[in-house]
Amino acid sequence: MARSSLYQQVAAELRKAIYLGALGPGDQIPTEAELMEAHRVSRNTVRLALGELENEGLILRMRRRGTFVRERRPLLIRPQQELLSLNTGEPRIDAFVHAVTSEGRQAGQDIEVAIVEPPEDVATRLALADRALAVVRRRLRFVDGQPYNTNDSYFPYAIVADSEIARPGDIRRGANRVLEELGHTQVRVVDDISARMPTPDESSRLQIEPGTPVVVYVRVGYDPEDVPVRVAVSVLPADKHLIRYELEAR
Amino acid sequence: MARSSLYQQVAAELRKAIYLGALGPGDQIPTEAELMEAHRVSRNTVRLALGELENEGLILRMRRRGTFVRERRPLLIRPQQELLSLNTGEPRIDAFVHAVTSEGRQAGQDIEVAIVEPPEDVATRLALADRALAVVRRRLRFVDGQPYNTNDSYFPYAIVADSEIARPGDIRRGANRVLEELGHTQVRVVDDISARMPTPDESSRLQIEPGTPVVVYVRVGYDPEDVPVRVAVSVLPADKHLIRYELEAR
Repeated sequence: MARSSLYQQVAAELRKAIYLGALGPGDQIPTEAELMEAHRVSRNTVRLALGELENEGLILRMRRRGTFVRERRPLLIRPQQELLSLNTGEPRIDAFVHAVTSEGRQAGQDIEVAIVEPPEDVATRLALADRALAVVRRRLRFVDGQPYNTNDSYFPYAIVADSEIARPGDIRRGANRVLEELGHTQVRVVDDISARMPTPDESSRLQIEPGTPVVVYVRVGYDPEDVPVRVAVSVLPADKHLIRYELEAR
Repeated sequence: MARSSLYQQVAAELRKAIYLGALGPGDQIPTEAELMEAHRVSRNTVRLALGELENEGLILRMRRRGTFVRERRPLLIRPQQELLSLNTGEPRIDAFVHAVTSEGRQAGQDIEVAIVEPPEDVATRLALADRALAVVRRRLRFVDGQPYNTNDSYFPYAIVADSEIARPGDIRRGANRVLEELGHTQVRVVDDISARMPTPDESSRLQIEPGTPVVVYVRVGYDPEDVPVRVAVSVLPADKHLIRYELEAR
């Protein structure tokens, strides 16, 4: 690496203190004046250093209150949980609601149902013909009243047109159960997981802090004829979520 | 949202063109002069707009060559692949090498072996006593000669001290096979997946472009006595990797 500039040296020392735990989650970072004196640098240098750490998602600058090491207590998402309850007689609980309630927290959601020409990648995954329609059920999910993530589930319109899935409002027994009743039980799913920076719209809806990526988790569900019947796209701010799979060697 | 400034409006139009596909992967973005004329704005406004898109990971500015929409052709990582070959007589192929070679590309790695006090989260996952040592096998992996990701595998020193795992160099039959020979076959794994911004050191080693997060994938392997015998930490630049699981409903 090239020789680092003054502000990078200050950032490196603070970063080290955070990674080694000398500054723990929620701890207040010394004030600008204290950092200027401790490192014998200008206010501008201190600000550049703090800006770098903020962009890395390590610290949070709160107006009037000061600068803090970010809390990292992610919600544990277990995509297999939803699958286990998929084809039993049990009431359905989706992975998000399960994760939230098992931590003793309150789960909530806003739901919006629409009939759309889906985005190209969703249309491809659903193997839809050109210009074919899908029903999308868009959910903005909350934990203890705070917006947490979004989940948009797409279904081929030709399959769900006359069902509850195409009507507004929550489905108590779950959309997956309705698919079963329509003869399209999901017997196999493919989960794709990636990450990217949020769009400005996502940042605003989900109140995402600067320097925080989102994990994008896409589940495609297939019926016994291997027809894709559901594409669920979850956008999970990375500082608040952890995805876990448990596998056994056979 | 608050009313957006001029540069944000220019950024929004370019973003829309990229998301809708009018500007596709690899396409060149109009020059600064063209954008100034098209939007009737100053060079500074154009630069601010392009800076925003670069930070979101949508475009790539290449010195002297211009600005391009980023290619998105991620390497498909299938964590189950490695598990399937875990306890068969087959030669081991790790998920990364399998993914690369099945795309007809060349996989390579630099490997470095050390005996260390592991980072706190690794020590916790390995259930190590205070100050207990681990062997770490650190790999920097290449695709067609380009650095692609890192994989650091930690093993309890008490278990692997006298084996090939604690010695430098590659193990042709794989470290997992050596664990088996030592009586510590992995019968169960737990995979944790999250994302964050890269550290400056990771950005430099992996040549990560600005505005690109990394996916952190941690696998813990347990032997039949439920003793954790391996913690593998992979750091995967998000623009170059996609993780896929396939599950069947039972």
